[in-house]
Amino acid sequence: MLSATTRTTLNRAKDRARTDRADLYAILDAGLVCHLGVLAGGSPMVIPTGYGRIGDTLYLHGSTGATSLRAGSGGQVCVTVTHLDGVVLARSAFHHSVNYRCAMVYGTARLVDDPEERLAGLRAITEQLAPGQWDVVRPPDRKEMAATAVLALSLEEASVKVRQGPPKDDEEDYDLPVWAGVLPLAVSWGVPEPDPRLTPGIPVPAHVRDRC
Amino acid sequence: MLSATTRTTLNRAKDRARTDRADLYAILDAGLVCHLGVLAGGSPMVIPTGYGRIGDTLYLHGSTGATSLRAGSGGQVCVTVTHLDGVVLARSAFHHSVNYRCAMVYGTARLVDDPEERLAGLRAITEQLAPGQWDVVRPPDRKEMAATAVLALSLEEASVKVRQGPPKDDEEDYDLPVWAGVLPLAVSWGVPEPDPRLTPGIPVPAHVRDRC
Repeated sequence: MLSATTRTTLNRAKDRARTDRADLYAILDAGLVCHLGVLAGGSPMVIPTGYGRIGDTLYLHGSTGATSLRAGSGGQVCVTVTHLDGVVLARSAFHHSVNYRCAMVYGTARLVDDPEERLAGLRAITEQLAPGQWDVVRPPDRKEMAATAVLALSLEEASVKVRQGPPKDDEEDYDLPVWAGVLPLAVSWGVPEPDPRLTPGIPVPAHVRDRC
Repeated sequence: MLSATTRTTLNRAKDRARTDRADLYAILDAGLVCHLGVLAGGSPMVIPTGYGRIGDTLYLHGSTGATSLRAGSGGQVCVTVTHLDGVVLARSAFHHSVNYRCAMVYGTARLVDDPEERLAGLRAITEQLAPGQWDVVRPPDRKEMAATAVLALSLEEASVKVRQGPPKDDEEDYDLPVWAGVLPLAVSWGVPEPDPRLTPGIPVPAHVRDRC
């Protein structure tokens, strides 16, 4: 079960709330980038960035010089992962909506110091974006590790919102001569585009090819 | 040209910055939802939500009771719109990346009072999500208008970041026997799903059908 704190408890549209931890994992694991919210100079800043999950910890990374990472480290952050599944076309403007799955995680980001955890975090972030890559590419060297900040965020305080299904119109609007329904959205992989500098003869590996 | 303020000027990866206002418009106009960052109780909160643009003003809306809207109104916000175009597979873990187009807008959100601007803002938000719908659906009535808060955000302070193209590996890594390239991502529309309660005989309108 997900915790119920003031900011994870929905005040409106309560039927969209999910409190099962498995729903949180499913939404996070299906994503490629999150939107990281930090406070920078007293104002909110929202940055798209990669992430990875190990158990109940979310890992983020960035350049040690990045404003967002400096602002996030040790401070309150909000990490949001959103999947857009369709546009909901209703009979009234007011009831237009989107079908989506969204996870929001709140907490204090911890700057990871332990070398083993840093490497595990980076592995999780790389594998989230490109499963199967970590074991076939050159691992980070000492200089790259030094240039990279790894942040950890506990999944302790999180909320999950999901909307699926047809529009919900006002009862008296169902007779209007207006088409209503859902226009589904899907994200799909295209054909792998080899690097123009790829050494001839290296085939697309199965873990990349089979993702399409 | 976009303005150059401390927070819109890139410190790193400067080659990804775009300063042409047309790039900002193109990224905003191609999006469906933004990620709105607000301060709620001193902490950042990042909410996916619809938006619309009229000239150099971005419009957002929500229930008058929504925490996010209350927090955003009159306060500093950051609105981020991100398009993910592909996963960049490099020869080293460190150079893995994503191809993306991202716009970030900073400013103080203004609660819109003027009835005409409120309606124009809601129209822009609806049309952003579902072009062509506003003129065929029931417009908001007095009660719905009263329940809806409309926020305006100037596009005065914004930054645009774009990454496209193949991986950029370290020169000495190009000889590694590792496949490298881009795995493209595309968002596509599916087949319209009629509301189970749709009055029989109403066809999918052209503006919905032709979007697919």
